[in-house]
Amino acid sequence: MTLQQLLGIELPIIQAPMAGVQGSAMAVAVCNAGGLGSLPGAMLSAEALGKELAAIKAQTSRSFNVNFFCHTPPATNARSRQREVAWRAALAPYYKEFGIDAAAIPGGPGRAPFSAEYADVLAPFKPAVVSFHFGLPSAELLARVRGWGSKIISSATTVDEALWLQAQGVDAVIAQGLEAGGHRGIFLSSDLSTQIGTMALLPQVVRALRVPVIAAGGIADARGVSAAMALGAAGVQIGTAYLLCPEATTSQVHRAALKSDAARHTALTNLFTGRPARGIVNRIMKELGAINAAVPDFPLATGAIAPLRARAESQGSGDFSPLWSGQNATGCREFGAAQLTRELAAGF
Amino acid sequence: MTLQQLLGIELPIIQAPMAGVQGSAMAVAVCNAGGLGSLPGAMLSAEALGKELAAIKAQTSRSFNVNFFCHTPPATNARSRQREVAWRAALAPYYKEFGIDAAAIPGGPGRAPFSAEYADVLAPFKPAVVSFHFGLPSAELLARVRGWGSKIISSATTVDEALWLQAQGVDAVIAQGLEAGGHRGIFLSSDLSTQIGTMALLPQVVRALRVPVIAAGGIADARGVSAAMALGAAGVQIGTAYLLCPEATTSQVHRAALKSDAARHTALTNLFTGRPARGIVNRIMKELGAINAAVPDFPLATGAIAPLRARAESQGSGDFSPLWSGQNATGCREFGAAQLTRELAAGF
Repeated sequence: MTLQQLLGIELPIIQAPMAGVQGSAMAVAVCNAGGLGSLPGAMLSAEALGKELAAIKAQTSRSFNVNFFCHTPPATNARSRQREVAWRAALAPYYKEFGIDAAAIPGGPGRAPFSAEYADVLAPFKPAVVSFHFGLPSAELLARVRGWGSKIISSATTVDEALWLQAQGVDAVIAQGLEAGGHRGIFLSSDLSTQIGTMALLPQVVRALRVPVIAAGGIADARGVSAAMALGAAGVQIGTAYLLCPEATTSQVHRAALKSDAARHTALTNLFTGRPARGIVNRIMKELGAINAAVPDFPLATGAIAPLRARAESQGSGDFSPLWSGQNATGCREFGAAQLTRELAAGF
Repeated sequence: MTLQQLLGIELPIIQAPMAGVQGSAMAVAVCNAGGLGSLPGAMLSAEALGKELAAIKAQTSRSFNVNFFCHTPPATNARSRQREVAWRAALAPYYKEFGIDAAAIPGGPGRAPFSAEYADVLAPFKPAVVSFHFGLPSAELLARVRGWGSKIISSATTVDEALWLQAQGVDAVIAQGLEAGGHRGIFLSSDLSTQIGTMALLPQVVRALRVPVIAAGGIADARGVSAAMALGAAGVQIGTAYLLCPEATTSQVHRAALKSDAARHTALTNLFTGRPARGIVNRIMKELGAINAAVPDFPLATGAIAPLRARAESQGSGDFSPLWSGQNATGCREFGAAQLTRELAAGF
């Protein structure tokens, strides 16, 4: 069975779910072009998720994907409070620079993991595909999703993670190469030296698994799609190339960075959320180090940096923003997501 | 003009020069199979280089490549002596474990950069191709090599490095993705966060340059060759896959590591030479950190670890050896380099 048959799609192009920079409009455009559009759930309340799902259902009859994170939220205790205090002290010079009252900064809303509450909202919509990041949710929640007939996919950043996901019964695995933008899906380890490039990861995952493998990381255009197919991928998941589409809600500072030479230099950083994610190198990453051991646990780090980001962005600066991008932003196109999907599919 | 025409070869497969694990026998086998065999010069004395070149000339009439490093050797001064003392102190527990007299360890021979002396040896052989790592030698030395009619190639690890090499007039550029084994060619920066995966680097270099681009990093088999070609490569340079060939001088502990699951986990490390190079993670990398800021400058670090390596290898252990490997060792084959070259070329 092809990936297209498995997921009920026409083209083996999956638009990567990108929390914070896209919603239902992007998903609908990609679905109606024959690809698999994705709705990222991690930054949506249950109510907002319901509205977005209704918007998708109203605009397409095609298969779509809903994505969730499935991290374990950190405990709130003396240790976490100490880390928060220490981290805010590290950020104090920036608060001063922008005239921000550090004492008045609320804890960040962060990102929520998949939960029974989300599942309740999802149930009536029965999405064709539900994808997860950072592993999988509990067996009970996973069984509920399967019960609606949804196909389950998740990201692997190593051969070990791919084998683990297959053993849990996923329908397909995304091999997320180190080039990929946004959060690394890494979940069996926290050692970033285990993370490898798509050219090396993809064929090793294809060789190790029975289930279809979807390639992600560094794929920017039809040639990249062809290369992934040559390496044995059943399909591709592409994010960065969609960030300049009109359907994306990418901020102006983020769009400007993606179009500049700055996009050539990205790094994995934990400064914005507490987990490693790839973004264009900016001032805060240079000054505090892209990976900083003092950062609060995911997703708590979001809170302390939020007011700096807001203030800088209001002045047209991305110095404190997560400028998510993969290592190849040359495929970003400023036209509709439907057309981009069709152009990418020319490589298939 | 194709890369084959430019370099005078039949197949666009370049066997990566691998100092310390191969010599003329490997180069000859690859050349006679129609690929471009390479002789690594960095660890050879001028006399040994002459003998190896004579051996190649005696066994093939085809184009061959000779490779040199072109680093600037570090100054020997109070600072370098201090670093050496501090580094040996860090290694002291290991010297003690193996009963090695730390005071009796000589400075390492290390690796020598391309020089007028090497050029004198090279001149009568007029190799079809001379490749460099860590940038290029002086304009004067480069002009001498060009004067014999040799084509010049060098490695780029970023778009900026690729543009710099093209501006110096190289005939082709190797785009060395982060997956590649052995020493990173990085030379315009020392910031490892600039290093990107082949799937992202290759198409960006192809887009930026007029000269042919050779793909390296993570390519392990014919499918990998096809993928690189799909991304616009004019040819490929492959190292790791050749490490188990009978023509390689790869040590037994290195061969055993490449064949084991340990090969799934490599890291960039400066412990063995002072510059970042990719090898299979072993005891010393785990215990001292793969990248350690106290390591002496390249290539001086080679000396201090040499006796530990020798002692451990004599006991069948690779705990202190540079187990160079790219991120995809699944292409390693235990048959002749000629057959491997032809199998790789099936992807072209």
